[in-house]
Amino acid sequence: MERIESPQNARIKAAAKLRLARGRHQSDQFLIDGARETLRALASGAGVETLILCRDFLNEHVAKQLLAAGKSRSVEVWETSPAAFAKVAYGDRVEGVVAIARSQPGQLSDWSPPSAGSIYVVLEGIEKPGNLGAIFRTADAVGVAGIILTQTRVTPENSNAIRASLGTVFSVPYVMAGLDDVFPWLEKHGVRRFAARVQASHEHWDITYFSAIESNPVALVLGSEAEGLTPAWQDPAVTGVRIPQAGIADSLNLSVAAGILLYEVARQRRLHLPQRIVGNC
Amino acid sequence: MERIESPQNARIKAAAKLRLARGRHQSDQFLIDGARETLRALASGAGVETLILCRDFLNEHVAKQLLAAGKSRSVEVWETSPAAFAKVAYGDRVEGVVAIARSQPGQLSDWSPPSAGSIYVVLEGIEKPGNLGAIFRTADAVGVAGIILTQTRVTPENSNAIRASLGTVFSVPYVMAGLDDVFPWLEKHGVRRFAARVQASHEHWDITYFSAIESNPVALVLGSEAEGLTPAWQDPAVTGVRIPQAGIADSLNLSVAAGILLYEVARQRRLHLPQRIVGNC
Repeated sequence: MERIESPQNARIKAAAKLRLARGRHQSDQFLIDGARETLRALASGAGVETLILCRDFLNEHVAKQLLAAGKSRSVEVWETSPAAFAKVAYGDRVEGVVAIARSQPGQLSDWSPPSAGSIYVVLEGIEKPGNLGAIFRTADAVGVAGIILTQTRVTPENSNAIRASLGTVFSVPYVMAGLDDVFPWLEKHGVRRFAARVQASHEHWDITYFSAIESNPVALVLGSEAEGLTPAWQDPAVTGVRIPQAGIADSLNLSVAAGILLYEVARQRRLHLPQRIVGNC
Repeated sequence: MERIESPQNARIKAAAKLRLARGRHQSDQFLIDGARETLRALASGAGVETLILCRDFLNEHVAKQLLAAGKSRSVEVWETSPAAFAKVAYGDRVEGVVAIARSQPGQLSDWSPPSAGSIYVVLEGIEKPGNLGAIFRTADAVGVAGIILTQTRVTPENSNAIRASLGTVFSVPYVMAGLDDVFPWLEKHGVRRFAARVQASHEHWDITYFSAIESNPVALVLGSEAEGLTPAWQDPAVTGVRIPQAGIADSLNLSVAAGILLYEVARQRRLHLPQRIVGNC
């Protein structure tokens, strides 16, 4: 444990740089805000290296939990003055803890082969941290086997994405991969692909994702907020899926659309594969 | 049409004050950002009084649409310099148009009696503009008859809520009302109430919202992001509904939860009340 008083301290300044994508990229580290999120990262072995604590803002009970969890993982602890802490903390979300974690990028080729009844999410070109975080939160709830990010414009290491995910970016497996890797992987493992498109001819609730005779893994594929999916997904092996909409707007918020689709898939899985039931814990 | 050059112009300064809740409250006016949102407001008669345009940022085709729509509603038009426009525009979302609109608060007592098969949303204590906007967007898609906001901490006149709604705050009817008005209104009109609660015993997909013999209107009730619903909704006349969750987090993003519930209700309505089918236009 060491004490840092000055906001000009070199390590505090280096940590503050991790707020920016460039800073994260340069050092392969990122920041986690908030006690719940940090505890979830520690619990899942997400590469937490340093806990930056400020006692003036930190609940004593939470501090004990953090220090116990950090100790079991040999995490470095800095105790800071409020001024030094403010330099590294985000806006007014001050809970008195920020963690520095090391990136642990995974490879699609390292993933176990999908099992029957498993559900994957593929996100192409997603832009908004709040949507990405909310999708992880839903994926955690449904028991998604993994999230594949391709051509992504935001990563799960973005601190707003972590926050919006309530720390589920540390529990739901994910990889970042190019389409050249994603297509063969899905194909090879017999993962059926359903792509969300505003223009698709099938409504999402008319599609059989799982049935008494069909339990192959399923991937839901969603495109970017502004542009949807690229033509790369217009392939006979991919089934287009449309969420019917009756109003003046022509699309739903991306994380809302993902939630509606994931829960329809999960509803069907529960009917036909009760051993994969959702919500039993 | 008049031309405003200076960012110090008194009307520009007065308009800029409408960014703040206090400014909106004082003058009963609010701002709308963006061309699509403004066109939707004009189309729905949402009380647009002034169009603030900046030709340097505005697409010529869009400008024509706005001016034509504004003319048919006798809307005042200010053409501004980039400096004057920047004073009233929001951040870097510069499309060259901001509108000033007058509040037109509705009353629950003015609403038509609910018809069979209609769906309402009640939001208690909602805080985040992005969630409120996304819920309007979903409500628009499902054909929700109305949104009732109670003890609300954000209003549909918040410019971020308008933006997140893609302008559907102007097409989906809403009112702000106290619980003392909401309960009797729902009761009087035989609206069945389903309250989203993490601890509820019924899973949302096990509940019959609509069936061959049940077509009474339905209200889905959701609480705030941080605290959920108050005990006021723990009433024998209200059915608790839980979205099953299998992961480490114990809740979904509020707008995602609303989307999952609304589409389950809509799915059942479509099965049993095909004349109320969703997505047929």
